[in-house]
Amino acid sequence: MPVYYFEMLGTAVFAITGVLVVSRRGLDVFGALVLGVVTALGGGTVRDVIIRAPIFWIEDLNYVWAALAGALLAFATAPRLSTASRVLLYLDAVGAALFAIAAANKVLILQFAGPVAVIMGVLTGIGGGLLRDVLAGRPTLLMSRDIYATPILLGCALFVALHDVTPRAGVICFAAICGLRALAIYRHLEMPAWLTHRDDSTR
Amino acid sequence: MPVYYFEMLGTAVFAITGVLVVSRRGLDVFGALVLGVVTALGGGTVRDVIIRAPIFWIEDLNYVWAALAGALLAFATAPRLSTASRVLLYLDAVGAALFAIAAANKVLILQFAGPVAVIMGVLTGIGGGLLRDVLAGRPTLLMSRDIYATPILLGCALFVALHDVTPRAGVICFAAICGLRALAIYRHLEMPAWLTHRDDSTR
Amino acid sequence: MPVYYFEMLGTAVFAITGVLVVSRRGLDVFGALVLGVVTALGGGTVRDVIIRAPIFWIEDLNYVWAALAGALLAFATAPRLSTASRVLLYLDAVGAALFAIAAANKVLILQFAGPVAVIMGVLTGIGGGLLRDVLAGRPTLLMSRDIYATPILLGCALFVALHDVTPRAGVICFAAICGLRALAIYRHLEMPAWLTHRDDSTR
Repeated sequence: MPVYYFEMLGTAVFAITGVLVVSRRGLDVFGALVLGVVTALGGGTVRDVIIRAPIFWIEDLNYVWAALAGALLAFATAPRLSTASRVLLYLDAVGAALFAIAAANKVLILQFAGPVAVIMGVLTGIGGGLLRDVLAGRPTLLMSRDIYATPILLGCALFVALHDVTPRAGVICFAAICGLRALAIYRHLEMPAWLTHRDDSTR
Repeated sequence: MPVYYFEMLGTAVFAITGVLVVSRRGLDVFGALVLGVVTALGGGTVRDVIIRAPIFWIEDLNYVWAALAGALLAFATAPRLSTASRVLLYLDAVGAALFAIAAANKVLILQFAGPVAVIMGVLTGIGGGLLRDVLAGRPTLLMSRDIYATPILLGCALFVALHDVTPRAGVICFAAICGLRALAIYRHLEMPAWLTHRDDSTR
Repeated sequence: MPVYYFEMLGTAVFAITGVLVVSRRGLDVFGALVLGVVTALGGGTVRDVIIRAPIFWIEDLNYVWAALAGALLAFATAPRLSTASRVLLYLDAVGAALFAIAAANKVLILQFAGPVAVIMGVLTGIGGGLLRDVLAGRPTLLMSRDIYATPILLGCALFVALHDVTPRAGVICFAAICGLRALAIYRHLEMPAWLTHRDDSTR
């Protein structure tokens, strides 16, 4: 099943980005492993705890191995990988889109209401990154104007609206999230000013 | 049932304060929604996970709508609302008192021991605010001398002591929390020095 | 059962260190109680939520009393205790080792796989401290080069490997964690440079 291999790749990519994002701050190998694994598995763990599903990485340890492999790879090659960070941004977008849609789908199959599926999709897509930033003492993505989470929110809402309409809802919404996010990365887009409160202290 | 409408109002107020508290730091609409919803629903979610109760906002999505409405309202009117922030402090105190006593009551009905009810009452009253501050990168209320959580702790302990004695325990303790907190806001009270360790670095 | 009394002592010591670590930053008695209790009970609570075991301190409130006693003692004597902080570092190492091995053992008895036992052992050993640091706005131990978590990781992995081989696996691995950590404290050891990324901003 190809989605399974994509999920493993997405898990490893999440772990890689988790390590790279903090590797400039003087991280030892243990901290790198923990931050990588938390980034990769944290969002889905919170989701499974809230919806009372079996924790996905306890059911299938391959997620743990993929996260550890990604974190170790990133730790070993961090100085060189940072030059390829733009490629990683795109891969990260693909991973987040995949996880978010897969989570929304899982929640709908378990007979939860549509809004719960949207919330859990967003949580799975951004939760690991939030945990990583909090543990690493960085500002979370909630405090930036990066267009990261908004495509995930829109894509999950679209998926909930379409999943009864067409069997291709998952593919369509996955592509929509990836496309929006890729556009934001490529064009350095930020949230428009009317959707942002300016920071008074830096005016 | 009037308590239900109060709970919805309290949820919206929590979401409003969640957005206002961070809106000066350059927040986009997505970040505002997440922080508002986390402030409003976070404490109760952690409580339900720990006591293994059904998650309250999955059971009744009106809590989600109330939180979203409050967050959007606060985002749209933030520049004007900050002048009314003192009113919001009082409303927030009412919301926290209501949530704390309701949580302690729920935990006692589920046959948990008294100390567990006190812990869960405090967690529900302050948990959402703690999560918000951590995600927003602000110092949490634990590190301030504001008299915010102490009335909640005292009120929940009193409720556990009185709930078998009088059917009005809930109303009495709710009023006690609101009264103490309102007094602290009105008189700008801080924790007394002998209950505080001074910060050596600013002496 | 002597392990039980050690666990109570370990809980109180965790709470004491939780209060002391932040007591210089202007903490009131309520903040001290919360941080102490979170340090002592937080890691095990997250573990029990993830493996769906009954929350240990709800089953046995003595853990709560031990944590509260430790936190209050630390708050009352903080100015004097800081001179004894080296002793507390050693006690903390003993507590963390005990909790980690006990957690790994509990998870194996519940028929989870070996890697899950290692993850849960580490989480129980360091989770409370991570929560404390995040709530107190301090850099977490993940961002330091202190040799704190690595002995726990190695000890738990060794325990999973040995627990079928010898009935003394627990004692051996407990002693190994304590010994490594005590050596690191005594010799002021840090993670070797080749296992650390230097912080570019301070070079």
